[in-house]
Parts: sequence; structure tokens; C-alpha cells
Amino acid sequence: MDPVRFELIHVDRQTGARRGRLYTPHGTVETPVYMPVGTQATVKAMKPRDLEECGASIILSNTYHLYMRPGHMLVKELGGLHSFMNWDHPILTDSGGFQVFSLAGINDIRDDGVFFRSHIDGSRHFFTPESVMEIEEALGADIAMCFDECAPVPSEHSYALRAMNRTHRWAERCKASHTRKDQALFGIVQGNTYRDLRIESAKTLAAMDFPGYGIGGLSVGEPKPVMYEMLEEIMPFMPSPKPRYLMGVGSPDCLLEGIRRGVDMFDCVLQTRSARNGLALTRTGRIMLRNAKYERDSRPIEDGCDCYACRHYSRAYLRHLIKANEILAAMLITEHNIRFSVRLMEDARKAIEEDRYGDFSSELLGGGIYTN
Amino acid sequence: MDPVRFELIHVDRQTGARRGRLYTPHGTVETPVYMPVGTQATVKAMKPRDLEECGASIILSNTYHLYMRPGHMLVKELGGLHSFMNWDHPILTDSGGFQVFSLAGINDIRDDGVFFRSHIDGSRHFFTPESVMEIEEALGADIAMCFDECAPVPSEHSYALRAMNRTHRWAERCKASHTRKDQALFGIVQGNTYRDLRIESAKTLAAMDFPGYGIGGLSVGEPKPVMYEMLEEIMPFMPSPKPRYLMGVGSPDCLLEGIRRGVDMFDCVLQTRSARNGLALTRTGRIMLRNAKYERDSRPIEDGCDCYACRHYSRAYLRHLIKANEILAAMLITEHNIRFSVRLMEDARKAIEEDRYGDFSSELLGGGIYTN
Repeated sequence: MDPVRFELIHVDRQTGARRGRLYTPHGTVETPVYMPVGTQATVKAMKPRDLEECGASIILSNTYHLYMRPGHMLVKELGGLHSFMNWDHPILTDSGGFQVFSLAGINDIRDDGVFFRSHIDGSRHFFTPESVMEIEEALGADIAMCFDECAPVPSEHSYALRAMNRTHRWAERCKASHTRKDQALFGIVQGNTYRDLRIESAKTLAAMDFPGYGIGGLSVGEPKPVMYEMLEEIMPFMPSPKPRYLMGVGSPDCLLEGIRRGVDMFDCVLQTRSARNGLALTRTGRIMLRNAKYERDSRPIEDGCDCYACRHYSRAYLRHLIKANEILAAMLITEHNIRFSVRLMEDARKAIEEDRYGDFSSELLGGGIYTN
Repeated sequence: MDPVRFELIHVDRQTGARRGRLYTPHGTVETPVYMPVGTQATVKAMKPRDLEECGASIILSNTYHLYMRPGHMLVKELGGLHSFMNWDHPILTDSGGFQVFSLAGINDIRDDGVFFRSHIDGSRHFFTPESVMEIEEALGADIAMCFDECAPVPSEHSYALRAMNRTHRWAERCKASHTRKDQALFGIVQGNTYRDLRIESAKTLAAMDFPGYGIGGLSVGEPKPVMYEMLEEIMPFMPSPKPRYLMGVGSPDCLLEGIRRGVDMFDCVLQTRSARNGLALTRTGRIMLRNAKYERDSRPIEDGCDCYACRHYSRAYLRHLIKANEILAAMLITEHNIRFSVRLMEDARKAIEEDRYGDFSSELLGGGIYTN
């Protein structure tokens, strides 16, 4: 029996949007779902309890960062990631692939693995599909991701092809070396912005029969229409009974557009990172709370929002906190942005169930929902 | 009818420690009490809800800071401090006296008031007893403090005398100009480290019949025994039916020593400030959570503590958060330090009720409780 199982409940008749359910060892996740990011074993400025209240049902944590600090063996020794960070709900860990190829200093990409330098202290490290499986198993998330090569955009077709093929060989090796029975391993579709490669990657991964699939290497600088086109190209080749996870996406518009094209899972740091800069998301656009125009504004961030910040605080107060460099500013705005995104997913799920997701998403996209 | 009323419930037979109760427009405060400090209309890194869960019953906010930013008229316009910061429990505001004489750049101390420069932008301001009353009334705390001159330690006797007399004249003027019926105004005893001045100040203020008294100008660099001696000297002259508030104190040892000498109220930033540096208070000493020796320590900060941090997290996790510069570190350690201090007061109150406060405080002071 697979530790993680996906149930496709309904497909919206107006679009290809999917309403599903993901069963994991730490609980059930209703999809489509937005996963807040807890890079260093904490969703920045949020207690787990606050996350629960926001309705977050699953979070992502970053393998590369936890390997670097505090070290996966320490996390394991302290009972694994769930216990370490006091989050008794589902967790997904990425593979570090994206970070190794973007954040760290790459020394050498070889077929057996990647030499890179730590972004913290410059120390030299070597990741292989096997070592990444060992790290992810030590962390003990419900869902682990395969180690992949995330080629930059733009890349030559020839390079994108090599990176894709390496990603496929690495996926085989990850699968072969993954042993943990209470953890699912998802494959990752690559192929850069090339239609033929994306389709080939989707087919190849599908043949490997993973319990779920990431779609990687998108939202890395290409125009959004290119990302949407890639999604449309691959979807016919993505196995329908398996969950589809668009990695590192999204802003509110990308969430809506991704769902419309059949994506089930998303993660993004926009919600938390922008909050720390005083940017609040709303269905009618962004609010830069630092701006002078909010100085005496007694309204909440967003009318109708049920988050702790909106229930208790004015924009004027939040602006004051930002100007005064108070930690509470980050805490409250993060809470709003996460609740905003979770609520958007709740409403999207309802719209899918009622076969009106096309109308629902079009209305929000036309109404000026925040896009970054 | 006074807006704030104090009830002396019991005096410990082993010491002069007092068990009391303070009735305010926003609720009842059991004394002795530690008041967390919310300088800029937020107790740093804490939601009001978290404060409530720590058992905090009253907080302090700083008039000088709020006058500077966001401005007392803005706070008033947004419904006053309670509403602005979402704290529907008692609040005490200091008078800005201490900040004007320590934080700001003093230009000129005159009998009618003080010219000073903002620590934020260097702009020039003038505080008088009357203007401070206006500011504190706009903020709308349950308890306001008189504007006082806080002379540095050491000061010549002649200067300390002049500052004390000015403080007394200003207290008269504060009383005369204070109009808000739902706000109590406390006087402040000054006199530097001079026994004769302290006694004279206590007597003079007592004659003015304030509903409560601050003891100011202590814990500003003098040795602790000097502070304790000053407390002992003045207590016979402090009206017993009125609450006594030792301003800007204290560390755990000072809380215990102050209570022993008849103090009812305390405020201190140590709990929150040190938390942001990774220092946790315990009954057997401080824990510098950043230290390498806590790297693999699976124990909570303090055994037996019921705070959120101690119920859910290991020292190893907290150390990781500190090393990774995560905001959650400040949030969790602050919560512990406040709960620690509130719980210390809870236990002190119980010990007083049972006439064993002498034993209680001696045991803790002998057991290595954190002293700063």
C-alpha cells in the first residue's frame, strides 16, 4: 500500500480543473492546495498553531537548507521534521535540486551527482540521487521529491535535453534507492521551455509510475504564457489518477491559472516573503502597507477576510508596525497572506465541485487579483 | 469614584511582601504583577492573544515613543491605545520622562518643561507636564504617570534636590491638568540615591494623594543594594493603601527583592529584549540558547514550564532557529520569558497568601535564579 494516495473527486466541466484529495501518513489534504513554505523548518514568522488556524493543511520544507543547517541527521535524531518543528500534519520536502542549481555555487555537474558550495560558508558538498534520498528519508516528510537537474531558462535545446535525460536517470536511481515505507516519492517533469522535451519528460516519468509528479523548472524567469503553454502541452501525458504539483508557483494569478490547467498542488514563498516587505495580497490587488496613504486608514487589510490580522487590526496599525520595524508586522501580514491563499484554494475547490471554476477564475483574474 | 482602585489583601508575615488587587476600567490585576513592555504599541514579537495565554494581565506602553510615532492624535483617532493595538486589558503609560532624559537629546531643562530632540529624526520638541497629560489622555491608558525629571546616577545632592523639587512641582501641575475620568494618574517618587531626598519625595507625593505611586530613577546604573536600600527607606512613608510601582525593574532577582520590600508592580524590557538575543530565563539561571552545547539538546527550555515554547520545542530547535536568523526564535523565547516572569509572580502571590514569601524568595535567590 502506498503511503500517499490520491483520489480524484471531480473535474470541472468548464475547465480541466481538478478537485482531489491526498491521503498521507499525517492526514488528508484537500486539493487544489497551496503549501506554505517552511524553508528552515519554520514558516517564517508563523507558529504552527497560526498556520493551522489559517487552514494550511500541508507545508513544504527545503532539503538543501536543512541539510546545511542544522543537518538532516540532527533532525532525525530529534524525531524527524514533524516532531522537530512541531507540525503534526503533512510535509513535503523538495530535493534540493532547485537550490543546488540556483542558490549554491555550482562546481561541477556530473552524471553521478553535483559538486557545489554552501551558500552559508562556502564549504564543498556533493549531492547524488542516493545521498538526497538518504537526506529526505532522515527528514521524514510524507512526500519526498526526486533529485533533478533544473536547467536555467533560457537554455539551448541540446543542454535542456541533456539535463532532462539526466533528471530521468536520476529519477530511476532515486526510486531504486528510496526505502522508507511511510514516505512517498514523487518524480519531477523537466524539459525547460521546449514543448517536445516537456512531453517526452511527462511520458518518461509516467512510465516510471511514481505516486505523484512535480512539474519543475518553470516560473524561473520565463514569461507566464510560456509556463501556461508548457502546462497545457504536458497535461494530456500526465497520469490522471496521480497528483500534479507545480513547484515554486504561485502568485494568486498563477494559482488560478495552474488549477485551470489541471494542477493540484502549489508552493510559493511569495506569500511569506512579500509579507515581510509589507505587501499584503487581496482579491483586488496588492496593498503596500508602508505607503503614506494608509497612515490613517482604519479598515482591515481586506474586507471579508477572516484572518487574525483582518479581524483585529487596521491598516493604520500595520503601517505603524512596519515603520517602527516591529516583528509583529511580519507576523500579522504573513498570516493574512497565507490565509488569503488558503481561502482562495477553498473557494476554488468549491467552484470546481459546482462546475463553475471557469467563471470563478475569470472573474478573479479580471478583477485585478494580485499578480507579481 | 476613582477609575483605578487598589485593594490590599494580605501582607506576608515573614516579610513586608503585599498581596493586592488593582481594579481598572479594563479589568482586574492581581498584584504583585510583572507588566510586559509594549513600547511601540506592541510587545515585541507577541500577539495580544499570546500575551493573554502567558497570563499577562496588564502591559506598559511608552508615551515618548508613541508621541513620536505614530503620534498620539493618530492613536486617539483610531480609538485609543487599547483598540489600536487590540489589547482589551489594562494598560499603563509612562510619562516619557525617563526617555526624554535618557534616549532623546536634551537641549534645555526649564521649570516649565523640557526641550529635546527626537531619537528618530532629530526634530525639536517641548514637553511640559500639561502637554504630557494631553498625550497620555489621548493614548487613553488605564493608568497614566506624571511627567518627572529623572536625574542621572550619580548626581550631586544639590542637583538631585533640584530635580526632585521640579518633579514635585510638575506632579502638582500634572494633577491640575489631568481631566480624563476613566484614567488614573500616578505620582512618581524621585530623589536619586539620597536617603533624605527619597523620604522627602515619598512624603511630599503622599500628601498629594495620588491613587498610586511610581518609584522612578532607580535601576539606572546604581548597585542593586543601593536600590534595595532606597526601597527600604521610603516604604514607611509610602501610603499603604496605594499601589507601589517600581519603574523599569526587573530582572527575576529584582522582582523577588522588590516584592519582599513591599513593591506591587513592575515593568521591564529584559524579558523581551534578551529573548531576541537568544537568552532564556529559568529559575536556575539563564540559558544562552545560541551556545553550541544546546545543539542536540532535546529538553525544553525549562522543565515544568507550561509556555507554548516549552510545551512544543527542544532547545536544539530553538538554537537552530537562532542560528538561522528565524523570527520564530524571538517569538518563542519571548513567550517563554514572559510566561516565566508571570508565573514567578503567580507563585509569589501564592507564597504571600500563605505567609511563606520569605522562604519562597530566599530559596529562589539561593538557587541561582537569573540575575542580570
